Amino acid sequence: MIRKVLVANRGEIAVRIIRACREMEIETVAVYSEADRDALHAKLADEAVCIGPARPTDSYLAMEQILSAAVVTGADAIHPGFGFLSENSRFAELCEKCGIIFIGPPAEVIARMGNKQEARNTMQKAGIPIIPGSRDAVYEEEDGLEQAKAIGYPVMIKAALGGGGKGMRVAQSPEEFRKNFRIAQTEAKQSFGDGAMYLEHFLTGPKHVEVQILADCAGNTIYLGERDCSMQRRHQKVLEEAPCASISQSQRQKMGECAVDAAKAAGYVNAGTIEFLLEPDGNFYFMEMNTRIQVEHPVTEWVTGVDLIKEQIRIADGQLLLLRQQDVSVNGHSIEVRINAQNPDAGFAPCPGTVTGLHLPGGKGVRVDSAIYSGYTIPPFYDAMIAKISVWAKSRREAIEKLHSALGEVIIEGVDTNVDFLYELLENEEFRQGKTDIEFLERRNGESK
Amino acid sequence: MIRKVLVANRGEIAVRIIRACREMEIETVAVYSEADRDALHAKLADEAVCIGPARPTDSYLAMEQILSAAVVTGADAIHPGFGFLSENSRFAELCEKCGIIFIGPPAEVIARMGNKQEARNTMQKAGIPIIPGSRDAVYEEEDGLEQAKAIGYPVMIKAALGGGGKGMRVAQSPEEFRKNFRIAQTEAKQSFGDGAMYLEHFLTGPKHVEVQILADCAGNTIYLGERDCSMQRRHQKVLEEAPCASISQSQRQKMGECAVDAAKAAGYVNAGTIEFLLEPDGNFYFMEMNTRIQVEHPVTEWVTGVDLIKEQIRIADGQLLLLRQQDVSVNGHSIEVRINAQNPDAGFAPCPGTVTGLHLPGGKGVRVDSAIYSGYTIPPFYDAMIAKISVWAKSRREAIEKLHSALGEVIIEGVDTNVDFLYELLENEEFRQGKTDIEFLERRNGESK
Repeated sequence: MIRKVLVANRGEIAVRIIRACREMEIETVAVYSEADRDALHAKLADEAVCIGPARPTDSYLAMEQILSAAVVTGADAIHPGFGFLSENSRFAELCEKCGIIFIGPPAEVIARMGNKQEARNTMQKAGIPIIPGSRDAVYEEEDGLEQAKAIGYPVMIKAALGGGGKGMRVAQSPEEFRKNFRIAQTEAKQSFGDGAMYLEHFLTGPKHVEVQILADCAGNTIYLGERDCSMQRRHQKVLEEAPCASISQSQRQKMGECAVDAAKAAGYVNAGTIEFLLEPDGNFYFMEMNTRIQVEHPVTEWVTGVDLIKEQIRIADGQLLLLRQQDVSVNGHSIEVRINAQNPDAGFAPCPGTVTGLHLPGGKGVRVDSAIYSGYTIPPFYDAMIAKISVWAKSRREAIEKLHSALGEVIIEGVDTNVDFLYELLENEEFRQGKTDIEFLERRNGESK
Repeated sequence: MIRKVLVANRGEIAVRIIRACREMEIETVAVYSEADRDALHAKLADEAVCIGPARPTDSYLAMEQILSAAVVTGADAIHPGFGFLSENSRFAELCEKCGIIFIGPPAEVIARMGNKQEARNTMQKAGIPIIPGSRDAVYEEEDGLEQAKAIGYPVMIKAALGGGGKGMRVAQSPEEFRKNFRIAQTEAKQSFGDGAMYLEHFLTGPKHVEVQILADCAGNTIYLGERDCSMQRRHQKVLEEAPCASISQSQRQKMGECAVDAAKAAGYVNAGTIEFLLEPDGNFYFMEMNTRIQVEHPVTEWVTGVDLIKEQIRIADGQLLLLRQQDVSVNGHSIEVRINAQNPDAGFAPCPGTVTGLHLPGGKGVRVDSAIYSGYTIPPFYDAMIAKISVWAKSRREAIEKLHSALGEVIIEGVDTNVDFLYELLENEEFRQGKTDIEFLERRNGESK
């Protein structure tokens, strides 16, 4: 039985993990950088070890220091949280070599899912829908036309070596294909010195919908409903909810079962997420698998009642899932927002500094996951997220009102935050009607991709 | 439709009600005494009206001032919270006369249930079990013996005019009855100048178990499970939980249906609570009905998902219950503790003052209902309760660990509180085994009744 867990992370997720351990009567070791001496996670753990200077590569990414801290303190397991080393297969491997349990999937599964092409191949073999695309580079227009037909219009024509939007054109029809292939290939040759093109089915207004799964070491795998994370800015999620408001019960089940198949195909163990892109017509495609706990896990916890961090620890401990698929039910609606120390009026630039005044909301159906306190100085070296507020209510409508009301109570003095931005976002009519796709926020902000 | 609610209360319950209104898009009016200018409830409401000096009789109990504030601000309803005017039938009546909706039961129901003898008679007529006792004063030993037999041993012999424990004796058998009746009657004559005695069945180690009910104006009445509030000190509840750990499902249903019968017998409308005393053998007896929302309502909200304050408002608005009995299910376990500004080492004396530092817990399954903030000065004029922390988990065991862990995070600087007392209480083995009765805490504290 795991008796002592080292938490190889910082911020609210480190606090979240320490709380779960305390409730399970497992001892905790925090690690912290020199910039994080006063951080809440370091205060809250039973023990705390300084692992190096502020720079992440010197501390939260420094595998040897973290493993040394685990050995010195006698921790028998490491929880990596999210970000930092959580999807580093080498770290998972090193833990294993040191005889320390890595609370996450086996190293080889992390590696397999981390390689996007290998992940795509694994899923394709398992019959999971992937975005249709050309297998090899396309050089000839006629060859391209034939492949585009098989892929299905609209088709995205991309420079195989491309990036930054150069050599990219969408074609809605064979006629457009002929015209745009030539333009894109010319651009590609000019920009990248190569006319190799790649074709992919172009998804129109897709939603980002992801499915939470849990798998134990005996291969028992279940899904815990989905999350709609379409509200993104520059691929950073801003607001997440569960369940997704725009899918039917049968579609929900289909995506869930597909996620379980995907996890099994990956040989997955522990908590993981299968990310899909969902088209307005209901078709969905595998995007990637996240082999760790996610920032937005609270919304799934709200609607299912399952404590995902505790499940991660139990699974890593070799225990079998007590939950069967038929025990999982999704109840009500939950929404989470990420509060960042940033200035929305200055291109959302990070805004570290000292929190001089703080009042966070509470009451029925309001959950606060935060690592800040009044007087705390947010260091400039790490992610700008300082707190998450999530709510639960019977209906989506009520959940929106609750979160809106809760955000209205937030007082954070001393640093700029995106609280007002989020407050206004919750008033947006398109959002209230559940009509947002992954491009909504950038469209609304008037930002280009 | 109710558009504007005046909250005739202060502290966390005022904040709780304001939050519910905001989520329902109902405007709010706070009232505050001169001592409460900086109180959170006054800051949070859309409007705030000062209704008089600190003394409750001059402000929170001053009906005319409160009604004037409602008229001036155009509030169409008043929520009384708990305490203060919440069980004052005269106030409910005055509201009605002013054309303002009183969010609670009709005035005559408050009056009927507020008179303990009338409540007892109402319940007896409706077939609700009440604690067996003598109907009239008993003067003669032989008459007493006969009545004691009918009541059932053990029997409590009380001076009819008594109080403070004088002239009170318990008899386990007819032999003891003869002896103790004489002693008690002698004491009664000496202390109160009258030998009139009252006999009542003596409950051994009872639990305080109460049932939450909701009733609409059409007479639809449902129960929302029970709460175990046996952890009391001088009749003040200290810790409450839902469900009660020591009753069976069939007993739960029996108590619930009995509570619904009691509410119907009382002609009840709105949210209310039927308090029972539960004996170890499973027999339970009507104690009293609370015709208002209770401090401990969050534990019921946690396990049923129902927002009781919103239901109160909807019912007062004349809306019918959307919930039917079969829609109510009790899920998991919830425990609440009351955090008081008091000194447990000085006989739990109230300890007002300025909160110089504050850190409250958060995370999964942790709810904070509080009206304090860092820098807030707790005035000496009101109840010592400054915050409630409630938790939810799948099992009672997990809920205890969660609350224990959450209390361990609380930092309240500047005033003494009972946080450490509660923290240790959660470690008590008798409590953990669910074996506590209403005398447990005073036994443990070494206090006499």
